[in-house]
Amino acid sequence: MRVRVGILTVSDSVSRGAYVDRGGPAVQQWLQTALATPWETVARVVPDEIPAITGALEELCDTERCPLVITTGGTGPAPRDVTPEATEAACSRLLPGFGEAMRAASLALVPTAILSRQTAGIRGSSLVINVPGSPAAVADCLAAVFAAVPDAVELIGGPRLETNPEVVAAYRPPHGR
Amino acid sequence: MRVRVGILTVSDSVSRGAYVDRGGPAVQQWLQTALATPWETVARVVPDEIPAITGALEELCDTERCPLVITTGGTGPAPRDVTPEATEAACSRLLPGFGEAMRAASLALVPTAILSRQTAGIRGSSLVINVPGSPAAVADCLAAVFAAVPDAVELIGGPRLETNPEVVAAYRPPHGR
Amino acid sequence: MRVRVGILTVSDSVSRGAYVDRGGPAVQQWLQTALATPWETVARVVPDEIPAITGALEELCDTERCPLVITTGGTGPAPRDVTPEATEAACSRLLPGFGEAMRAASLALVPTAILSRQTAGIRGSSLVINVPGSPAAVADCLAAVFAAVPDAVELIGGPRLETNPEVVAAYRPPHGR
Repeated sequence: MRVRVGILTVSDSVSRGAYVDRGGPAVQQWLQTALATPWETVARVVPDEIPAITGALEELCDTERCPLVITTGGTGPAPRDVTPEATEAACSRLLPGFGEAMRAASLALVPTAILSRQTAGIRGSSLVINVPGSPAAVADCLAAVFAAVPDAVELIGGPRLETNPEVVAAYRPPHGR
Repeated sequence: MRVRVGILTVSDSVSRGAYVDRGGPAVQQWLQTALATPWETVARVVPDEIPAITGALEELCDTERCPLVITTGGTGPAPRDVTPEATEAACSRLLPGFGEAMRAASLALVPTAILSRQTAGIRGSSLVINVPGSPAAVADCLAAVFAAVPDAVELIGGPRLETNPEVVAAYRPPHGR
Repeated sequence: MRVRVGILTVSDSVSRGAYVDRGGPAVQQWLQTALATPWETVARVVPDEIPAITGALEELCDTERCPLVITTGGTGPAPRDVTPEATEAACSRLLPGFGEAMRAASLALVPTAILSRQTAGIRGSSLVINVPGSPAAVADCLAAVFAAVPDAVELIGGPRLETNPEVVAAYRPPHGR
């Protein structure tokens, strides 16, 4: 039984076929190096519309039963960027530390990291994490937070995830927190 | 006249007597080393329920007149962790810099620091600060923010607090901000 | 055609003439060193009242057509400090990375940086950024985020801003994010 990981590409241009998806494959590729547990991708592409994004998150979490969903794209300040709003709408609670840590890590590389409004949240037994659409930012952001993802997934009732320690060493606190 | 400091342990298991409180005593012990002003503890223990937590915060701030209240526990991502929500409900305004600084300081020590949703806020003339339940995290988090606590308490109408400079040097800006 | 930059001083005492404005001139002076594009100031002073602040933000963004508005003052924890609330009310979306980065930069200088609740947001095609009232904090905070401001202003439909690279090097990502 493979763990199902949702990868949701949020992009008007990719959605209408005008542009090839680069964010989704970047997430896929990073997870392939990082995850040691057998897993499979449940990929979706939606335009930059709140109902489309929340609908896809609901499907990936509730129907497809993905304990982990990574969105890519739509996190910036432009009027069409609404992924954080859709994530907040789909999740029962937010985890502000993810956005803070991803922005802080990216800020060490590019000053415009502060423009990303990315967040993370919990829907049922699923952890949803926003990363930007740029392939370089995808890897930087996932690397900044993924050591905490296995513990988070377990705390909300998901399966045990193992990582490849040469990419990221999953950390589990000794006994609760 | 001693300054009253509220210490609120939020834990289902401690509340029902199944587990000894470790977070509350850790807060108490850290404050004993840090505070030079004569003070006394007003301790409470409640289960992980929003009404119980907000009720205790109201009592500690409004009835017991504690200018400073530290909560411990219930800040994680698990479904029963609701201390941040209860704090937000009890406070008229939040101070996001406390959560950011505590997570950043803890993140230098453990990757799962980003899972804590702890915040701080103001209720009337009381400053409320969330720290995690783990005794080690209690000290790390209080050390990360306490230099700003005396100034914050005064700005909201509370008493002057002095600290032991070898533990934490209270900072007061030259003239307002 | 000069770019119009709104500078909004939020202060009861300055507003009633009891105290000379130091925050507004500090913003003006910092921008004079940082901005290479021809620009002019649209200055306003209001008391620490939410309706007065939101009203001034609406005027500066909608009527005066300032693509960039910097507020100074009213970001602290004191009961009269309401600039963040007024900014949230006037903006359709917030950019949490600005507050995080400004607090982190200030925290390296003064422990009380965590008490500032400053944020940034977007109203129409205008970027609104809060900085504290203290002249020293004005420069520290603007220096911490301004490299991302020209990209942000363009992404929301504003003009191209050039900076003096010896003060701050505006960064624009290669192609979208």
